[in-house]
Amino acid sequence: MTGAFVAGVGISRFGKRLPGSIWTLGRTAIIDAMADADIHPRQVGMLICATARSGSLIGRENGVGHLLAGDCGIRQVPIFDVKAHCASGAVAFNIASTYIAAGQCDVAVAVGLERMSNRKGKGHLLTADGMEAEGDQGFTPAAYFAMMAQQHMLTYGTTREQLAQVAVKNRLAGSLNDKAQYRQPVHLGEVLASPVVADPLGLYDCCPTGDGAAAAVLVSSRAAGRARQGGPVRVAASVLATGSYAPMPDMTAVSADSRAAAQAYQQAGLGPADVEVAEVHDAFTISELVHYEDLGFCAKGEAGALVQAGVSGLGGRLPVNPSGGLLSRGHPLGATGIAQITEIVQQLRGACGARQAGHPRVGLTQVSGGFAANEVATSGVTVLVR
Amino acid sequence: MTGAFVAGVGISRFGKRLPGSIWTLGRTAIIDAMADADIHPRQVGMLICATARSGSLIGRENGVGHLLAGDCGIRQVPIFDVKAHCASGAVAFNIASTYIAAGQCDVAVAVGLERMSNRKGKGHLLTADGMEAEGDQGFTPAAYFAMMAQQHMLTYGTTREQLAQVAVKNRLAGSLNDKAQYRQPVHLGEVLASPVVADPLGLYDCCPTGDGAAAAVLVSSRAAGRARQGGPVRVAASVLATGSYAPMPDMTAVSADSRAAAQAYQQAGLGPADVEVAEVHDAFTISELVHYEDLGFCAKGEAGALVQAGVSGLGGRLPVNPSGGLLSRGHPLGATGIAQITEIVQQLRGACGARQAGHPRVGLTQVSGGFAANEVATSGVTVLVR
Repeated sequence: MTGAFVAGVGISRFGKRLPGSIWTLGRTAIIDAMADADIHPRQVGMLICATARSGSLIGRENGVGHLLAGDCGIRQVPIFDVKAHCASGAVAFNIASTYIAAGQCDVAVAVGLERMSNRKGKGHLLTADGMEAEGDQGFTPAAYFAMMAQQHMLTYGTTREQLAQVAVKNRLAGSLNDKAQYRQPVHLGEVLASPVVADPLGLYDCCPTGDGAAAAVLVSSRAAGRARQGGPVRVAASVLATGSYAPMPDMTAVSADSRAAAQAYQQAGLGPADVEVAEVHDAFTISELVHYEDLGFCAKGEAGALVQAGVSGLGGRLPVNPSGGLLSRGHPLGATGIAQITEIVQQLRGACGARQAGHPRVGLTQVSGGFAANEVATSGVTVLVR
Repeated sequence: MTGAFVAGVGISRFGKRLPGSIWTLGRTAIIDAMADADIHPRQVGMLICATARSGSLIGRENGVGHLLAGDCGIRQVPIFDVKAHCASGAVAFNIASTYIAAGQCDVAVAVGLERMSNRKGKGHLLTADGMEAEGDQGFTPAAYFAMMAQQHMLTYGTTREQLAQVAVKNRLAGSLNDKAQYRQPVHLGEVLASPVVADPLGLYDCCPTGDGAAAAVLVSSRAAGRARQGGPVRVAASVLATGSYAPMPDMTAVSADSRAAAQAYQQAGLGPADVEVAEVHDAFTISELVHYEDLGFCAKGEAGALVQAGVSGLGGRLPVNPSGGLLSRGHPLGATGIAQITEIVQQLRGACGARQAGHPRVGLTQVSGGFAANEVATSGVTVLVR
């Protein structure tokens, strides 16, 4: 229980070479979120902006949030930028909920965005910030997650087809999401036949780069009464955790994620069995499977069977990534953590149309930033309750 | 009243081409602050790292805090980077105190650092991030503050000598601070005869660039009992504010600073007359004078007379920048906001030796980031009480 509520969400289209600048995308997300929350810009008490690479990608390390805020009529209040690799959005959300819990303000905007297309040179982003030396020697995220997949297959008998089913599932969901970067479903055979990126991962096992923005308006319980759209969604837990320096005891698990999840369940007074819909960090198909296990959605080693049985599909008991996830909706780094929140809020409201995942009351988001389990890894887990 | 206390502080040497990397400076500050607080790394519940230009200056936009934390034995807990131009350090401090107020942790480390020497090309940092177009046309910070000085002289009769006295005062204080970038005092005549940077500001009216790091360990009231060194210092107020888009009604005032100060005084239940020592953002000599007025240390237009009368000198009623300030201790962007905190904490403890400013019980810090009064400006004001 954090004392904060999500009163409104907004998300831009995700994709490459979209009409409009990154500033237009960011403004769209914030303005839509404020309208959704029925909040006037003058009521906003602070704004936190998440980007992972605004310096190298749009030439502005500082003041991204300031410019967006001013353009949206949010002025004079505390505004700053935060960075934590792919988990930046979760950090912004966590800060917003904490400031509300501390009574610092009644209304806070968390916005995340990134512009990754149209950049000069494609090689730079092959790896996480600060891992360039390792990346130059071939230790890219795809290579790392391929090793994780190989180990998971070896230890638990996970199959190539089970990995591919994650891609099929998320591309199907994305085909129903008009904000998604990829709108075309793919068949199992297409995934299996796609060019190998890092064995066993093929093209469809890897999330794309792209542009996009997402925003959430968080409010205190006092301000929550004013929200429309069927009432605000309660932030039952918002937790950040960082990787350990210790050698990875298990290549098939991400310790920061399981630690964050355990704390989040405790904070929410709920367990994994209570979660009815989730957005998890499917940067690669194997990531989604490993996160099922990190989050306690199944026992260790059983994630492949879970996706194969359709449990995590749109019609299943626990739909995961109904937005299409990183694999289909897309992964503009700083936007992702908040894009996950926007999807879960809309799912809890029953507002997702063709991709609506039943009638959930409890939803979870999980995002991983930096190289899993190393010193720069940050995990963010959020539990939202209708 | 924020509910947080500063239990320990640490600061590296400031300057150019110092021995050791920026990582060494950052580690030094954190480890010294933890030792000062008698806190073991395992007790630290989170770390927030402030830099303004880590991407362009050390090639790492993300994960600066993660690397420093791991090197210092701080692991698994929430860690992230924040950026708000020259006010980045104040943002990190504000976040730390807010997380403690919200009960998210009992011990938080706020660290700020920047490496500005040894960089390739000196032109890039002539202006604030995002103001490059204006900078290319000559609207650099020095030009802006020169205009502010001209207007202050015209409207209030402030003299060139009064501006120069700020530099003389702060260089004298810095000569007594073994962490300061400049240890040589300067005479009034030297300041007046120094090369003009932007009329009326000369070389000694402008702060230097340089490297440095500073850290503070913040604790909850529960954890405060464990601190040594004569007891922890209470964070009576920590406030951030942002500039307005409105045209500047008064070129000689910074609205974000006066707004932040008013809120800070209210939060602390104190007024400007209660402040006995202060660190203010003397990026230029005129900045310090204008901040006296923004902070209510004197009536509008009377700052020149204040410094001329010696009120803000080490032996005066309200010593300002006993550390030497930005003009003498130096201004590694992300470090500054926390360096100010380290000085005030040491002053409140009576631990400053030759530069000790009496026996203060109430101290204040003020930092300004981005171009004053424009859309990217952030001000941070902190009130600390022994």
